[in-house]
Amino acid sequence: MNYQRFFEEAIDQIHAERRYRVFADLERIAGSFPKAIWRSNGEAQEITVWCSNDYLGMGQHPDVIGAFQNTAGKMGSGAGGTRNISGTNHPLVELELELADLHGKEAALVFTSGFVSNEASISTIARLLPNCLILSDELNHASMIEGVRRSGAEKKIFRHNDVAHLESLLQAAGRERAKLIVFESVYSMDGDIAPIKEIADLAEKYNAMTYIDEVHAVGMYGPRGGGITEREGLADRIDIIEGTLAKAFGTLGGYITGTKSVIDAVRSFAPGFIFTTALPPAIAAAATTSIRHLKTSQAERDAQQRQAARAKEVFASVGLPVMPSETHIVPVLVGDPELCKMATDRLLGVHGIYIQPINYPTVPRGTERLRITPTPFHTDALIDVLKDALVETWDALGIPYNTEGKPAVAKSDRIIPLLVPKSGG
Amino acid sequence: MNYQRFFEEAIDQIHAERRYRVFADLERIAGSFPKAIWRSNGEAQEITVWCSNDYLGMGQHPDVIGAFQNTAGKMGSGAGGTRNISGTNHPLVELELELADLHGKEAALVFTSGFVSNEASISTIARLLPNCLILSDELNHASMIEGVRRSGAEKKIFRHNDVAHLESLLQAAGRERAKLIVFESVYSMDGDIAPIKEIADLAEKYNAMTYIDEVHAVGMYGPRGGGITEREGLADRIDIIEGTLAKAFGTLGGYITGTKSVIDAVRSFAPGFIFTTALPPAIAAAATTSIRHLKTSQAERDAQQRQAARAKEVFASVGLPVMPSETHIVPVLVGDPELCKMATDRLLGVHGIYIQPINYPTVPRGTERLRITPTPFHTDALIDVLKDALVETWDALGIPYNTEGKPAVAKSDRIIPLLVPKSGG
Repeated sequence: MNYQRFFEEAIDQIHAERRYRVFADLERIAGSFPKAIWRSNGEAQEITVWCSNDYLGMGQHPDVIGAFQNTAGKMGSGAGGTRNISGTNHPLVELELELADLHGKEAALVFTSGFVSNEASISTIARLLPNCLILSDELNHASMIEGVRRSGAEKKIFRHNDVAHLESLLQAAGRERAKLIVFESVYSMDGDIAPIKEIADLAEKYNAMTYIDEVHAVGMYGPRGGGITEREGLADRIDIIEGTLAKAFGTLGGYITGTKSVIDAVRSFAPGFIFTTALPPAIAAAATTSIRHLKTSQAERDAQQRQAARAKEVFASVGLPVMPSETHIVPVLVGDPELCKMATDRLLGVHGIYIQPINYPTVPRGTERLRITPTPFHTDALIDVLKDALVETWDALGIPYNTEGKPAVAKSDRIIPLLVPKSGG
Repeated sequence: MNYQRFFEEAIDQIHAERRYRVFADLERIAGSFPKAIWRSNGEAQEITVWCSNDYLGMGQHPDVIGAFQNTAGKMGSGAGGTRNISGTNHPLVELELELADLHGKEAALVFTSGFVSNEASISTIARLLPNCLILSDELNHASMIEGVRRSGAEKKIFRHNDVAHLESLLQAAGRERAKLIVFESVYSMDGDIAPIKEIADLAEKYNAMTYIDEVHAVGMYGPRGGGITEREGLADRIDIIEGTLAKAFGTLGGYITGTKSVIDAVRSFAPGFIFTTALPPAIAAAATTSIRHLKTSQAERDAQQRQAARAKEVFASVGLPVMPSETHIVPVLVGDPELCKMATDRLLGVHGIYIQPINYPTVPRGTERLRITPTPFHTDALIDVLKDALVETWDALGIPYNTEGKPAVAKSDRIIPLLVPKSGG
């Protein structure tokens, strides 16, 4: 066994499959969002970011930065311990109260990331419940899939957003068996929304627990930013609502909310929670400030929806193949992995526009795409600049336009790979 | 199945076993470390923290806080995406270069926590290597145990720091089979140190890869804070050195360092890395500042060692049962879980001194203890105050003193529980 050669060959293999990822070295400019400095080959250049998950630009909000800086000045840069051993800081306690209130739940628990919150919570809940059956949407995020795997529980995958399929699986399991339905509200690659009410109805009918991932919705939907469950008045019908502090709230970390006893169980039994240093007080305070702002301010949500709708319209008006999306996410079909990578390289190199290519296995082969996320700070002028750049790129590379004036692609089944999971990243 | 009742009963069970954990609500005071405000039952009180993992007080260092605040002011409060999708920020790129240099390795990779760095790296490396056998020290941290489990690889546990046992396992596996030895440099509950040179010799002899966890050593040992491997000139003999930014460096996050190809493999294949929002630039900049400071400043390391040695002496001089420790960690034996909890409650309530009780399953039954971590900011006067408080508590509760003037307890075998893992937290 030659370890060095083995790992070199593994990397060569990724190169050969054209799946080797180079991370863009970015320096975001607070106050000039979505502008950033991009460093490459020793040169620095100002570019426009069009694929950020800082969906509302809250990461540069003066109040959020102020809370971040003030709290660091008063309490230092770190938490200094795990939650149990000296790391539970007062801003974190306040943040958990704020999150429980946001979703109308009894309690909340904060993790260092959304990935860990899904993995630790799903695996712990399903492991505690005797003989639990997990029912999981086929397009769930990698972090949920890891949670399902790690639970060791039996799982059944239901077809994406297919309540009839879900019902047949629930029926087969019977009312008495412990069951956990895990799904997302907004699926981030297509921007479509789950039939939450129907799933809640089924959960009631067949006595199942429900776990929803709202990471691509919190802050952005619902009158107080409580997500799709808040917008549709369904938060009280879902047992566990999971969310993130690292997207629309502009900071770092993930969380779950639910009844006191469920939260307490995860708090007490999840290794990924117990044995991790707590979030720094400055991060917690910044997140709380962001959540409180978005509980009362509708301006960011309105502007985001307006700019997303405008981007879809403007792109469609010139025949760019905008894929159907019910949300702020604007996918534009390329349909070929090489072209997709060439398109984003050209956008960055020629136009100073940064969009990450989305290829298999993140999306099915043949549906390779650009995933564009307009924010309140992507002005009409920026949208027009992007439209022109896309057209130039489409022409230069010979990428097909949408000639039929209808949705550019039908949804297809997806393959879940073993080692490089799907969805985002 | 009544879910609500099920989880309530699970919590009742923890209460009944006296294992229910209440997190102390603390507000650390930058500039007055180790002082903090403790909130309980609506009251706030200033207390002294004696169990922080901010081992050198770097979390309140003005340069570190300054970097944190300045970077947030310039770049905002969050990273805005995963590493691959717009989240790789320039301070994070600089941090990884700094970490590679710290350990004399080709490359480094930063994670959002030390837990994730161990879990993701060990599981990914062992999963990639064909038919890998993992050789794991029996006292490894929960995060390493999770990494071993998730790899799906065969594992053999070797007795703690027992190189003869390790050799017999290596010999049985043979030179050709892929093997990964995972261990820690400093074990945090006893404060003892692994025989790194002997393990490296065995790894060479039997052609095994080596993975060392230095989270309780980086920043604190070695002339530049490179850990025990640096102090002993062995960094180049260990394949992967893992560390944390959340203890001696005073911020948040974990990392691995190693050859370019190994780091690149973990970067490319670990879901827990790929699908997680990057650390905020402010955290990365603060960590880099802290590492750079400790690369040249010996003062903090000297003061920590001096105060730890003094604490051990002062406590031993009055017969307190200080357990043997080769490091900055000062364990004091109580030997009973109820007394241990009562002692820490009394220290906090009567003396304003916060130390978390360490009970089973974190340590073996019968070795319940206080785990005290003196820092450069725990002055001689504070040590004396603690000594008096411990004596008062020992007397009030009738906890045994060390009457024999020799090590208070022999090491015993430990039981690794299923759901609530050992070590810290």
